[in-house]
Amino acid sequence: MSQKNYQTLKGFRDFLPEKAIKRDWLIKKLKNIFENFGFDPLETPALEYADVLLGKYGEEADKLIYLFKDKGGRLIGLRYDQTVPLARIISQYQNITKPFKRYQIQSVWRAENTQKGRYREFLQCDIDIVGEKNILADFEIINLVLKTFKTLGFKKTKILINDRKNFEGINNSFIASIDKLPKIGEERVIEELVLKGLNKKEAKKLIESIKNKQKTDSIKKIFDLLKKQGYKENTDFIYQPTLARGLDYYTGIIYEVVDENYPSSSLGGGGRYDNLIGLFTGRNIPAVGFAFGFDRIFEAMESLSLLPNIKTKTQVLVTIFSYDLLEKSIETTQFLRKNNINTELYLNPEDKLEKQLKYADKKQIPYVVIIGEEETKNNVFRLKNMKTGEQKKLTISQLVNSLTL
Amino acid sequence: MSQKNYQTLKGFRDFLPEKAIKRDWLIKKLKNIFENFGFDPLETPALEYADVLLGKYGEEADKLIYLFKDKGGRLIGLRYDQTVPLARIISQYQNITKPFKRYQIQSVWRAENTQKGRYREFLQCDIDIVGEKNILADFEIINLVLKTFKTLGFKKTKILINDRKNFEGINNSFIASIDKLPKIGEERVIEELVLKGLNKKEAKKLIESIKNKQKTDSIKKIFDLLKKQGYKENTDFIYQPTLARGLDYYTGIIYEVVDENYPSSSLGGGGRYDNLIGLFTGRNIPAVGFAFGFDRIFEAMESLSLLPNIKTKTQVLVTIFSYDLLEKSIETTQFLRKNNINTELYLNPEDKLEKQLKYADKKQIPYVVIIGEEETKNNVFRLKNMKTGEQKKLTISQLVNSLTL
Repeated sequence: MSQKNYQTLKGFRDFLPEKAIKRDWLIKKLKNIFENFGFDPLETPALEYADVLLGKYGEEADKLIYLFKDKGGRLIGLRYDQTVPLARIISQYQNITKPFKRYQIQSVWRAENTQKGRYREFLQCDIDIVGEKNILADFEIINLVLKTFKTLGFKKTKILINDRKNFEGINNSFIASIDKLPKIGEERVIEELVLKGLNKKEAKKLIESIKNKQKTDSIKKIFDLLKKQGYKENTDFIYQPTLARGLDYYTGIIYEVVDENYPSSSLGGGGRYDNLIGLFTGRNIPAVGFAFGFDRIFEAMESLSLLPNIKTKTQVLVTIFSYDLLEKSIETTQFLRKNNINTELYLNPEDKLEKQLKYADKKQIPYVVIIGEEETKNNVFRLKNMKTGEQKKLTISQLVNSLTL
Repeated sequence: MSQKNYQTLKGFRDFLPEKAIKRDWLIKKLKNIFENFGFDPLETPALEYADVLLGKYGEEADKLIYLFKDKGGRLIGLRYDQTVPLARIISQYQNITKPFKRYQIQSVWRAENTQKGRYREFLQCDIDIVGEKNILADFEIINLVLKTFKTLGFKKTKILINDRKNFEGINNSFIASIDKLPKIGEERVIEELVLKGLNKKEAKKLIESIKNKQKTDSIKKIFDLLKKQGYKENTDFIYQPTLARGLDYYTGIIYEVVDENYPSSSLGGGGRYDNLIGLFTGRNIPAVGFAFGFDRIFEAMESLSLLPNIKTKTQVLVTIFSYDLLEKSIETTQFLRKNNINTELYLNPEDKLEKQLKYADKKQIPYVVIIGEEETKNNVFRLKNMKTGEQKKLTISQLVNSLTL
């Protein structure tokens, strides 16, 4: 039988248990923080009308949308981000109470060039506040972002903040080049600007003028609020007048999170976009939000050893000594489960104990329970710590206590 | 501006917070039970090569797969179920420790006829054990299923059990008709069988012979184990010799969950399929599993009032009395959040208190904190219960305690 295509597609990933457990752990942490800040979950379908997806991102992005015709001939596509579906939601359900504070943690799909090491399916974690123009909304998003990275254990994370108003009157394509300053350096930005029609002197002058922009009133207000909450300027947050964020749809305060220990790319970004939702609803509705780069945060946490180091959620394997003692093992398994201990029952009574222990070892289950004839007679349970090799004879309540701690 | 297609696609659903919160709650419950029984999570991509997806389900099903060509010309499709991706995983990662016990909770997509009230995207919750032929594996799946429905609060749920061996030598298309006995009744099954080439007498005889099939050895063993664990025959589980389960790939014990209070359709089903994975790996690997019908379970629980009755995860709204007292409100918000209380800060200091209370009411946030000038002076906090209207003046620690209980 040919097996040539029984593989994962390029740019797509399987998450085997060890990875899936860690991802789950991180998702749970994020959800808890989002809910702690008064955000509720929202889910939208994987597929949307092409009309919904197209034309809001700019042509470059549109090329990356997975589009196809369904069996009814409708042009449809896979979710590309979560901001456009949010805008569609606001338009479709006009009576949603506003400000609408939602988080959304779902996959998005992009027909990226995999040579760049980019994934074609990845998890996006967004928080947004729709319907509030007051700067307290911007503050709350930044507040949540700072809290999130601290809670996750990041020590060298900083949020760069700017106001799109600093770029008023400047050509969008120039802004795109200036945005690259920290990544490619001043010389190459000047080269780009020259290619875009400025002469060298004009390019230098433009960069200087942007670098020297003073904090806007909005920035000052937010910085004031952040400082009062104990966050430190330049350590926790910093004004960066050259920060532009790629997307054209931002209209006010924008921000991006970077980490000294993980300089390769930003860990998330966001800002105020007061005009995007209007494209769907016909009237402008202010909005502000942040997208956490789940994969990059996960990778950073992995490299900083901030993720739990477990291979299975199972705490204990109950072995089966013999067919005669099978029932005793099942009973014990059920009892441990009732006591909220994640318990696996070995499934083949014909296998020797040695093979059963090997299985626990391979799966890195931390504990094994052995119930032989002697144990049954004395009504005790042998608990083996698979890491240290230590064995103890315990009563059932001692067994539960040992596994609960 | 035209808004004609800024809508959800037919057969697809948005889950606004109220629904998303309940779905989340149910998913968490299911995950906890699966992990309690020693299952670990697995995730596979939404898109697979068409080669992986096609031909394993039968022609009828193949028509329902969303297939399209990607930008590289590859024929790909959206996940149709989670069993075929599992088989692909087993083939692709040959060194996975077996028995491999995994759960998978992800969306699947089917180009169904929406006239039948079916969804085109829905959540599937599967548990499977791969690599164990011993009947203890079948027992553990049934054991978990029974435990799940009890834990969720179902009172009239029963698992129907049969052995595909009871159908040995009988034409598959006849089996498909017999499977419908509980749904369409004996007369219509006979009609179907006549259309399929039997005469009326033969049809009746076939049905009688199947109804009279005795329990196989496997069934007897499983029933024995279940009874020893306190489950009751005929109440919790029952032998049903006419149960066939649609899919051809089952090879041994099969089962389906039904509920007296929700008779319209089964709440899940599964069984042993020892030959399917071999289509991917080239050598047979035994497997047994169960698929929970998430939407039907959710609907059943909704109609039986078994789901939490909340509209938001937010426990309290901290209002803002005036610009002067804004800081005090932010501080209080942060303090409550630190104490694990899901807290929303009202975002517009210009709004009157009345409007702020109305907002909490609309969002059904159960409590509101009011901090006016008098409260600030006396260092107390006014807590309003939005359901009863009751108000209390509390110290900060009393406030935390009231909201924690």
